Amino acid sequence: MDGQPIERGQRLSRAAAQRLSLYLRCVAGWPTDGDKMVPSRRIADAVGVSDAQVRRDLAALGHLGQRGIGYDAKELAAAIRTALGIDRGWRAVLVGAGNLGRALLKYQGFRAQGFDIVALFDCDAAKVGQEVAGLKVEAASTIAARVTELNAELGVLTVPAEAAHAVAAALTEAGVRGILNFAPVVLKLPKQVRLVTVDLAIQLEQLAFRVQHGDDDDE
Amino acid sequence: MDGQPIERGQRLSRAAAQRLSLYLRCVAGWPTDGDKMVPSRRIADAVGVSDAQVRRDLAALGHLGQRGIGYDAKELAAAIRTALGIDRGWRAVLVGAGNLGRALLKYQGFRAQGFDIVALFDCDAAKVGQEVAGLKVEAASTIAARVTELNAELGVLTVPAEAAHAVAAALTEAGVRGILNFAPVVLKLPKQVRLVTVDLAIQLEQLAFRVQHGDDDDE
Repeated sequence: MDGQPIERGQRLSRAAAQRLSLYLRCVAGWPTDGDKMVPSRRIADAVGVSDAQVRRDLAALGHLGQRGIGYDAKELAAAIRTALGIDRGWRAVLVGAGNLGRALLKYQGFRAQGFDIVALFDCDAAKVGQEVAGLKVEAASTIAARVTELNAELGVLTVPAEAAHAVAAALTEAGVRGILNFAPVVLKLPKQVRLVTVDLAIQLEQLAFRVQHGDDDDE
Repeated sequence: MDGQPIERGQRLSRAAAQRLSLYLRCVAGWPTDGDKMVPSRRIADAVGVSDAQVRRDLAALGHLGQRGIGYDAKELAAAIRTALGIDRGWRAVLVGAGNLGRALLKYQGFRAQGFDIVALFDCDAAKVGQEVAGLKVEAASTIAARVTELNAELGVLTVPAEAAHAVAAALTEAGVRGILNFAPVVLKLPKQVRLVTVDLAIQLEQLAFRVQHGDDDDE
Protein backbone atom coordinates (compact mmCIF):
# COMPACT_ATOMS: atom_id res chain seq x y z
CA MET A 1 0.00 0.00 0.00
CA ASP A 2 2.97 2.24 -0.64
CA GLY A 3 3.69 4.02 -3.87
CA GLN A 4 3.72 7.49 -5.28
CA PRO A 5 0.34 9.13 -5.70
CA ILE A 6 -0.83 9.33 -9.28
CA GLU A 7 -1.15 12.90 -10.49
CA ARG A 8 -4.48 13.90 -11.92
CA GLY A 9 -3.88 13.54 -15.62
CA GLN A 10 -1.02 11.08 -15.23
CA ARG A 11 -1.41 8.10 -17.53
CA LEU A 12 -3.13 5.04 -16.25
CA SER A 13 -3.29 2.13 -18.68
CA ARG A 14 -6.68 1.19 -20.10
CA ALA A 15 -6.47 -2.19 -18.44
CA ALA A 16 -5.77 -0.57 -15.06
CA ALA A 17 -8.63 1.88 -15.59
CA GLN A 18 -10.99 -1.02 -16.29
CA ARG A 19 -9.88 -2.85 -13.17
CA LEU A 20 -10.43 0.33 -11.13
CA SER A 21 -13.99 0.52 -12.49
CA LEU A 22 -14.56 -3.04 -11.28
CA TYR A 23 -13.03 -2.36 -7.85
CA LEU A 24 -15.26 0.68 -7.54
CA ARG A 25 -18.33 -1.36 -8.48
CA CYS A 26 -17.52 -3.83 -5.70
CA VAL A 27 -16.54 -1.39 -3.01
CA ALA A 28 -19.48 0.93 -3.71
CA GLY A 29 -21.87 -2.03 -3.67
CA TRP A 30 -20.83 -3.36 -0.27
CA PRO A 31 -22.62 -2.26 2.86
CA THR A 32 -20.37 -0.18 5.09
CA ASP A 33 -20.76 0.09 8.84
CA GLY A 34 -19.28 3.54 9.32
CA ASP A 35 -15.51 3.25 9.08
CA LYS A 36 -15.30 -0.39 8.02
CA MET A 37 -11.98 -1.27 6.40
CA VAL A 38 -11.87 -3.40 3.26
CA PRO A 39 -8.93 -5.78 2.83
CA SER A 40 -7.41 -5.97 -0.67
CA ARG A 41 -8.04 -9.74 -0.62
CA ARG A 42 -11.79 -9.16 -0.48
CA ILE A 43 -11.68 -6.92 -3.55
CA ALA A 44 -9.40 -9.38 -5.33
CA ASP A 45 -11.77 -12.28 -4.67
CA ALA A 46 -14.84 -10.35 -5.78
CA VAL A 47 -13.30 -9.16 -9.04
CA GLY A 48 -11.28 -12.29 -9.70
CA VAL A 49 -7.77 -10.82 -9.93
CA SER A 50 -4.79 -11.45 -7.67
CA ASP A 51 -4.38 -9.74 -4.35
CA ALA A 52 -1.02 -8.37 -5.53
CA GLN A 53 -2.69 -6.83 -8.60
CA VAL A 54 -5.26 -5.01 -6.47
CA ARG A 55 -2.54 -3.69 -4.17
CA ARG A 56 -0.42 -2.54 -7.11
CA ASP A 57 -3.35 -0.79 -8.79
CA LEU A 58 -4.41 0.95 -5.59
CA ALA A 59 -0.86 1.92 -4.64
CA ALA A 60 -0.80 3.96 -7.84
CA LEU A 61 -3.64 6.10 -6.48
CA GLY A 62 -1.60 7.38 -3.54
CA HIS A 63 -1.18 6.56 0.10
CA LEU A 64 -4.39 4.71 0.71
CA GLY A 65 -5.04 1.96 3.20
CA GLN A 66 -3.17 0.58 6.16
CA ARG A 67 -0.81 -2.33 5.82
CA GLY A 68 -2.40 -5.50 7.17
CA ILE A 69 -5.77 -3.85 7.75
CA GLY A 70 -7.12 -2.64 4.44
CA TYR A 71 -8.68 0.37 2.82
CA ASP A 72 -11.33 2.72 4.05
CA ALA A 73 -14.19 1.95 1.65
CA LYS A 74 -15.35 5.55 1.31
CA GLU A 75 -11.85 6.98 0.86
CA LEU A 76 -11.04 4.26 -1.64
CA ALA A 77 -14.18 4.89 -3.72
CA ALA A 78 -13.40 8.62 -3.78
CA ALA A 79 -9.78 8.00 -4.86
CA ILE A 80 -10.88 5.70 -7.69
CA ARG A 81 -13.49 8.21 -8.87
CA THR A 82 -10.82 10.92 -8.96
CA ALA A 83 -8.37 8.70 -10.86
CA LEU A 84 -11.03 7.82 -13.44
CA GLY A 85 -12.27 11.40 -13.78
CA ILE A 86 -15.76 10.58 -12.52
CA ASP A 87 -15.56 12.67 -9.36
CA ARG A 88 -17.69 15.15 -11.28
CA GLY A 89 -20.88 14.82 -13.30
CA TRP A 90 -20.91 14.25 -17.06
CA ARG A 91 -23.73 15.36 -19.35
CA ALA A 92 -24.47 13.07 -22.25
CA VAL A 93 -26.95 12.92 -25.10
CA LEU A 94 -28.30 9.70 -26.56
CA VAL A 95 -29.08 9.19 -30.23
CA GLY A 96 -31.35 6.29 -31.17
CA ALA A 97 -34.65 5.75 -29.35
CA GLY A 98 -34.96 2.05 -30.16
CA ASN A 99 -34.94 -0.82 -27.68
CA LEU A 100 -31.27 -0.41 -26.82
CA GLY A 101 -31.58 3.34 -26.33
CA ARG A 102 -34.63 2.84 -24.12
CA ALA A 103 -32.81 0.19 -22.10
CA LEU A 104 -29.89 2.55 -21.51
CA LEU A 105 -32.18 5.41 -20.51
CA LYS A 106 -33.94 3.25 -17.94
CA TYR A 107 -30.66 1.88 -16.67
CA GLN A 108 -30.12 3.25 -13.18
CA GLY A 109 -26.38 2.66 -13.22
CA PHE A 110 -25.58 5.69 -15.37
CA ARG A 111 -27.06 8.28 -13.06
CA ALA A 112 -25.61 6.51 -10.03
CA GLN A 113 -22.14 6.90 -11.54
CA GLY A 114 -22.63 10.60 -12.31
CA PHE A 115 -23.72 10.33 -15.94
CA ASP A 116 -26.76 12.41 -16.77
CA ILE A 117 -28.45 11.76 -20.11
CA VAL A 118 -29.95 15.16 -20.85
CA ALA A 119 -31.43 14.67 -24.32
CA LEU A 120 -32.64 11.92 -26.62
CA PHE A 121 -32.65 12.11 -30.42
CA ASP A 122 -33.88 9.91 -33.21
CA CYS A 123 -33.67 10.07 -37.01
CA ASP A 124 -37.23 8.73 -37.35
CA ALA A 125 -39.75 11.59 -37.50
CA ALA A 126 -42.47 9.24 -36.22
CA LYS A 127 -40.64 8.90 -32.89
CA VAL A 128 -40.08 12.62 -32.38
CA GLY A 129 -42.21 13.90 -29.49
CA GLN A 130 -42.60 10.48 -27.83
CA GLU A 131 -41.60 10.39 -24.20
CA VAL A 132 -39.09 7.83 -22.95
CA ALA A 133 -37.98 7.70 -19.31
CA GLY A 134 -38.84 11.35 -18.81
CA LEU A 135 -37.20 12.65 -22.00
CA LYS A 136 -38.97 13.77 -25.18
CA VAL A 137 -37.51 12.34 -28.38
CA GLU A 138 -36.06 15.21 -30.45
CA ALA A 139 -35.23 15.30 -34.16
CA ALA A 140 -31.67 14.28 -35.02
CA SER A 141 -31.42 17.41 -37.17
CA THR A 142 -31.34 19.49 -33.97
CA ILE A 143 -28.33 17.70 -32.46
CA ALA A 144 -25.83 20.50 -33.14
CA ALA A 145 -27.93 23.25 -31.58
CA ARG A 146 -29.09 21.20 -28.61
CA VAL A 147 -25.68 19.75 -27.67
CA THR A 148 -24.28 23.28 -27.50
CA GLU A 149 -27.28 24.58 -25.57
CA LEU A 150 -27.19 21.70 -23.08
CA ASN A 151 -23.40 21.77 -22.77
CA ALA A 152 -23.23 18.00 -23.25
CA GLU A 153 -19.77 16.47 -23.45
CA LEU A 154 -20.56 12.86 -24.33
CA GLY A 155 -22.71 11.20 -26.96
CA VAL A 156 -24.14 7.70 -26.82
CA LEU A 157 -24.92 6.09 -30.18
CA THR A 158 -27.61 3.43 -30.33
CA VAL A 159 -28.57 3.86 -33.98
CA PRO A 160 -28.41 1.18 -36.69
CA ALA A 161 -25.05 0.64 -38.40
CA GLU A 162 -26.06 2.51 -41.55
CA ALA A 163 -26.84 5.70 -39.60
CA ALA A 164 -23.84 5.60 -37.28
CA HIS A 165 -21.28 7.49 -39.37
CA ALA A 166 -23.59 10.44 -40.07
CA VAL A 167 -24.73 10.73 -36.46
CA ALA A 168 -21.16 10.46 -35.15
CA ALA A 169 -20.20 13.26 -37.54
CA ALA A 170 -23.07 15.41 -36.27
CA LEU A 171 -22.06 14.81 -32.65
CA THR A 172 -18.42 15.59 -33.43
CA GLU A 173 -19.45 18.74 -35.27
CA ALA A 174 -21.55 19.69 -32.24
CA GLY A 175 -18.46 19.50 -30.07
CA VAL A 176 -18.87 16.37 -27.95
CA ARG A 177 -15.58 15.12 -26.52
CA GLY A 178 -16.37 11.44 -26.43
CA ILE A 179 -18.70 8.92 -28.07
CA LEU A 180 -19.92 5.60 -26.69
CA ASN A 181 -20.83 3.65 -29.80
CA PHE A 182 -23.07 0.59 -29.82
CA ALA A 183 -23.44 0.40 -33.61
CA PRO A 184 -21.48 -2.50 -35.13
CA VAL A 185 -19.23 -0.28 -37.23
CA VAL A 186 -15.66 0.97 -36.84
CA LEU A 187 -15.98 4.75 -36.55
CA LYS A 188 -13.18 7.09 -37.52
CA LEU A 189 -13.29 10.26 -35.42
CA PRO A 190 -11.05 13.31 -35.23
CA LYS A 191 -8.19 12.84 -32.78
CA GLN A 192 -9.72 15.09 -30.11
CA VAL A 193 -12.89 12.98 -29.83
CA ARG A 194 -12.50 9.81 -27.74
CA LEU A 195 -14.31 6.65 -28.71
CA VAL A 196 -15.43 3.57 -26.83
CA THR A 197 -17.16 0.99 -29.00
CA VAL A 198 -19.33 -1.73 -27.52
CA ASP A 199 -19.93 -4.22 -30.32
CA LEU A 200 -22.36 -6.73 -28.87
CA ALA A 201 -21.55 -9.47 -31.39
CA ILE A 202 -17.86 -9.08 -30.52
CA GLN A 203 -18.70 -9.69 -26.86
CA LEU A 204 -20.40 -12.95 -27.81
CA GLU A 205 -17.46 -13.87 -30.02
CA GLN A 206 -15.10 -13.31 -27.12
CA LEU A 207 -17.27 -15.53 -24.95
CA ALA A 208 -17.26 -18.27 -27.59
CA PHE A 209 -13.48 -17.92 -27.85
CA ARG A 210 -13.06 -18.40 -24.11
CA VAL A 211 -15.42 -21.39 -24.06
CA GLN A 212 -13.74 -22.94 -27.06
CA HIS A 213 -10.19 -22.49 -25.90
CA GLY A 214 -10.70 -22.85 -22.17
CA ASP A 215 -9.31 -19.38 -21.55
CA ASP A 216 -8.84 -18.89 -17.84
CA ASP A 217 -7.18 -15.49 -17.55
CA ASP A 218 -8.28 -13.36 -14.66
CA GLU A 219 -11.65 -11.84 -15.48
CA MET B 1 3.46 -12.68 -42.99
CA ASP B 2 5.61 -15.49 -41.73
CA GLY B 3 5.16 -17.24 -38.44
CA GLN B 4 4.08 -20.61 -37.16
CA PRO B 5 0.41 -21.45 -37.57
CA ILE B 6 -1.54 -21.34 -34.33
CA GLU B 7 -2.89 -24.73 -33.37
CA ARG B 8 -6.59 -24.93 -32.71
CA GLY B 9 -6.77 -24.61 -28.98
CA GLN B 10 -3.39 -22.90 -28.67
CA ARG B 11 -3.60 -19.84 -26.45
CA LEU B 12 -4.26 -16.51 -28.00
CA SER B 13 -4.29 -13.55 -25.60
CA ARG B 14 -7.60 -11.86 -24.91
CA ALA B 15 -6.30 -8.65 -26.41
CA ALA B 16 -5.28 -10.48 -29.59
CA ALA B 17 -8.66 -12.21 -29.74
CA GLN B 18 -10.41 -8.84 -29.51
CA ARG B 19 -8.28 -7.39 -32.27
CA LEU B 20 -9.07 -10.43 -34.44
CA SER B 21 -12.79 -9.79 -33.88
CA LEU B 22 -12.29 -6.23 -35.13
CA TYR B 23 -10.25 -7.33 -38.15
CA LEU B 24 -12.97 -9.81 -39.00
CA ARG B 25 -15.64 -7.13 -38.69
CA CYS B 26 -13.72 -4.98 -41.19
CA VAL B 27 -12.75 -7.65 -43.66
CA ALA B 28 -16.20 -9.25 -43.66
CA GLY B 29 -17.82 -5.85 -44.17
CA TRP B 30 -15.80 -4.89 -47.22
CA PRO B 31 -17.06 -5.63 -50.69
CA THR B 32 -14.92 -8.25 -52.39
CA ASP B 33 -14.54 -8.57 -56.15
CA GLY B 34 -13.81 -12.26 -56.31
CA ASP B 35 -10.21 -12.78 -55.26
CA LYS B 36 -9.43 -9.21 -54.16
CA MET B 37 -6.41 -9.02 -51.86
CA VAL B 38 -6.52 -6.86 -48.73
CA PRO B 39 -3.28 -5.18 -47.63
CA SER B 40 -2.56 -5.23 -43.89
CA ARG B 41 -2.31 -1.42 -43.98
CA ARG B 42 -5.97 -1.18 -44.94
CA ILE B 43 -7.04 -3.30 -41.97
CA ALA B 44 -4.69 -1.35 -39.68
CA ASP B 45 -6.17 1.98 -40.78
CA ALA B 46 -9.75 0.81 -40.39
CA VAL B 47 -9.24 -0.61 -36.90
CA GLY B 48 -6.77 2.02 -35.75
CA VAL B 49 -3.81 -0.18 -34.81
CA SER B 50 -0.35 -0.29 -36.37
CA ASP B 51 0.37 -2.13 -39.55
CA ALA B 52 3.01 -4.18 -37.69
CA GLN B 53 0.42 -5.22 -35.09
CA VAL B 54 -1.96 -6.49 -37.77
CA ARG B 55 0.83 -8.44 -39.46
CA ARG B 56 1.97 -9.95 -36.15
CA ASP B 57 -1.57 -10.96 -35.19
CA LEU B 58 -2.27 -12.52 -38.58
CA ALA B 59 1.09 -14.27 -38.75
CA ALA B 60 0.01 -16.17 -35.65
CA LEU B 61 -2.88 -17.66 -37.66
CA GLY B 62 -0.59 -19.45 -40.09
CA HIS B 63 0.80 -18.84 -43.53
CA LEU B 64 -1.71 -16.35 -44.82
CA GLY B 65 -1.19 -13.61 -47.33
CA GLN B 66 1.51 -12.74 -49.81
CA ARG B 67 4.32 -10.41 -48.91
CA GLY B 68 3.78 -7.00 -50.49
CA ILE B 69 0.34 -7.90 -51.81
CA GLY B 70 -1.90 -8.69 -48.88
CA TYR B 71 -4.40 -11.23 -47.69
CA ASP B 72 -7.18 -12.97 -49.51
CA ALA B 73 -10.24 -11.54 -47.77
CA LYS B 74 -12.22 -14.78 -47.76
CA GLU B 75 -9.31 -16.94 -46.60
CA LEU B 76 -8.47 -14.39 -43.92
CA ALA B 77 -12.05 -14.27 -42.59
CA ALA B 78 -12.13 -18.06 -42.43
CA ALA B 79 -8.79 -18.23 -40.58
CA ILE B 80 -9.94 -15.66 -38.01
CA ARG B 81 -13.22 -17.51 -37.48
CA THR B 82 -11.32 -20.72 -36.87
CA ALA B 83 -8.91 -19.06 -34.44
CA LEU B 84 -11.80 -17.54 -32.48
CA GLY B 85 -13.85 -20.73 -32.48
CA ILE B 86 -16.70 -19.21 -34.46
CA ASP B 87 -16.29 -21.36 -37.55
CA ARG B 88 -19.28 -23.27 -36.20
CA GLY B 89 -22.68 -22.20 -34.88
CA TRP B 90 -23.39 -21.55 -31.21
CA ARG B 91 -26.80 -21.95 -29.61
CA ALA B 92 -27.64 -19.48 -26.87
CA VAL B 93 -30.58 -18.72 -24.62
CA LEU B 94 -31.46 -15.24 -23.44
CA VAL B 95 -32.89 -14.49 -20.00
CA GLY B 96 -34.61 -11.13 -19.49
CA ALA B 97 -37.24 -9.93 -21.97
CA GLY B 98 -36.91 -6.22 -21.17
CA ASN B 99 -35.71 -3.49 -23.51
CA LEU B 100 -32.12 -4.72 -23.57
CA GLY B 101 -33.14 -8.33 -24.21
CA ARG B 102 -35.45 -7.22 -27.01
CA ALA B 103 -32.70 -5.08 -28.52
CA LEU B 104 -30.32 -8.05 -28.52
CA LEU B 105 -32.92 -10.36 -30.05
CA LYS B 106 -33.56 -7.95 -32.89
CA TYR B 107 -29.86 -7.34 -33.39
CA GLN B 108 -28.91 -8.89 -36.70
CA GLY B 109 -25.21 -9.14 -35.85
CA PHE B 110 -25.59 -12.21 -33.66
CA ARG B 111 -27.07 -14.46 -36.29
CA ALA B 112 -24.64 -13.13 -38.90
CA GLN B 113 -21.75 -14.25 -36.67
CA GLY B 114 -23.20 -17.70 -36.14
CA PHE B 115 -24.97 -17.14 -32.80
CA ASP B 116 -28.48 -18.47 -32.70
CA ILE B 117 -30.67 -17.38 -29.79
CA VAL B 118 -33.01 -20.34 -29.48
CA ALA B 119 -35.06 -19.46 -26.39
CA LEU B 120 -36.11 -16.45 -24.34
CA PHE B 121 -36.96 -16.54 -20.65
CA ASP B 122 -38.26 -14.04 -18.12
CA CYS B 123 -38.91 -14.14 -14.39
CA ASP B 124 -42.07 -12.05 -14.79
CA ALA B 125 -45.13 -14.28 -15.25
CA ALA B 126 -46.93 -11.41 -17.02
CA LYS B 127 -44.40 -11.58 -19.87
CA VAL B 128 -44.56 -15.36 -20.33
CA GLY B 129 -46.26 -16.20 -23.63
CA GLN B 130 -45.53 -12.84 -25.27
CA GLU B 131 -43.77 -13.05 -28.59
CA VAL B 132 -40.54 -11.15 -29.22
CA ALA B 133 -38.68 -11.35 -32.52
CA GLY B 134 -40.18 -14.75 -33.28
CA LEU B 135 -39.59 -16.29 -29.84
CA LYS B 136 -42.21 -16.90 -27.15
CA VAL B 137 -41.20 -15.76 -23.67
CA GLU B 138 -40.88 -18.81 -21.41
CA ALA B 139 -40.93 -18.99 -17.60
CA ALA B 140 -37.49 -18.76 -15.98
CA SER B 141 -38.39 -21.82 -13.92
CA THR B 142 -38.10 -23.93 -17.08
CA ILE B 143 -34.51 -22.90 -17.85
CA ALA B 144 -32.90 -26.15 -16.73
CA ALA B 145 -35.17 -28.41 -18.76
CA ARG B 146 -35.18 -26.23 -21.87
CA VAL B 147 -31.42 -25.60 -22.01
CA THR B 148 -30.82 -29.34 -21.97
CA GLU B 149 -33.56 -30.00 -24.52
CA LEU B 150 -32.28 -27.27 -26.85
CA ASN B 151 -28.65 -28.19 -26.36
CA ALA B 152 -27.75 -24.54 -25.75
CA GLU B 153 -24.16 -23.81 -24.78
CA LEU B 154 -24.31 -20.09 -24.01
CA GLY B 155 -26.56 -17.93 -21.86
CA VAL B 156 -27.13 -14.20 -22.23
CA LEU B 157 -28.23 -12.38 -19.08
CA THR B 158 -30.24 -9.19 -19.44
CA VAL B 159 -32.02 -9.30 -16.10
CA PRO B 160 -31.86 -6.65 -13.36
CA ALA B 161 -28.92 -6.81 -10.95
CA GLU B 162 -30.96 -8.35 -8.15
CA ALA B 163 -31.99 -11.34 -10.29
CA ALA B 164 -28.61 -11.96 -11.89
CA HIS B 165 -27.04 -14.31 -9.36
CA ALA B 166 -30.04 -16.67 -9.23
CA VAL B 167 -30.42 -16.79 -13.02
CA ALA B 168 -26.67 -17.33 -13.51
CA ALA B 169 -26.88 -20.22 -11.04
CA ALA B 170 -29.82 -21.73 -12.95
CA LEU B 171 -27.95 -21.46 -16.26
CA THR B 172 -24.83 -22.99 -14.73
CA GLU B 173 -26.90 -25.79 -13.25
CA ALA B 174 -28.46 -26.34 -16.66
CA GLY B 175 -25.00 -26.88 -18.10
CA VAL B 176 -24.25 -23.79 -20.19
CA ARG B 177 -20.54 -23.35 -20.85
CA GLY B 178 -20.46 -19.57 -21.01
CA ILE B 179 -22.48 -16.56 -19.87
CA LEU B 180 -22.60 -13.10 -21.41
CA ASN B 181 -23.71 -10.91 -18.51
CA PHE B 182 -25.18 -7.43 -18.91
CA ALA B 183 -26.31 -7.08 -15.28
CA PRO B 184 -24.15 -4.64 -13.31
CA VAL B 185 -22.92 -7.24 -10.83
CA VAL B 186 -19.72 -9.25 -10.48
CA LEU B 187 -20.79 -12.88 -10.92
CA LYS B 188 -18.85 -15.75 -9.42
CA LEU B 189 -19.19 -18.87 -11.56
CA PRO B 190 -17.68 -22.33 -11.33
CA LYS B 191 -14.34 -22.54 -13.11
CA GLN B 192 -15.71 -24.48 -16.09
CA VAL B 193 -18.21 -21.74 -16.99
CA ARG B 194 -16.69 -18.79 -18.89
CA LEU B 195 -17.94 -15.30 -18.26
CA VAL B 196 -17.92 -12.09 -20.26
CA THR B 197 -19.47 -9.14 -18.46
CA VAL B 198 -20.62 -6.04 -20.29
CA ASP B 199 -21.24 -3.42 -17.63
CA LEU B 200 -22.69 -0.48 -19.51
CA ALA B 201 -21.86 2.07 -16.80
CA ILE B 202 -18.25 0.88 -16.88
CA GLN B 203 -18.13 1.56 -20.61
CA LEU B 204 -19.24 5.14 -19.97
CA GLU B 205 -16.71 5.44 -17.15
CA GLN B 206 -13.97 4.30 -19.48
CA LEU B 207 -15.07 6.88 -22.02
CA ALA B 208 -15.04 9.62 -19.36
CA PHE B 209 -11.57 8.46 -18.31
CA ARG B 210 -10.27 8.75 -21.86
CA VAL B 211 -11.83 12.18 -22.36
CA GLN B 212 -10.54 13.42 -19.01
CA HIS B 213 -7.02 12.15 -19.42
CA GLY B 214 -6.61 12.52 -23.14
CA ASP B 215 -5.95 8.81 -23.56
CA ASP B 216 -4.77 8.14 -27.09
CA ASP B 217 -3.91 4.47 -27.10
CA ASP B 218 -4.82 2.56 -30.20
CA GLU B 219 -8.53 1.81 -30.13
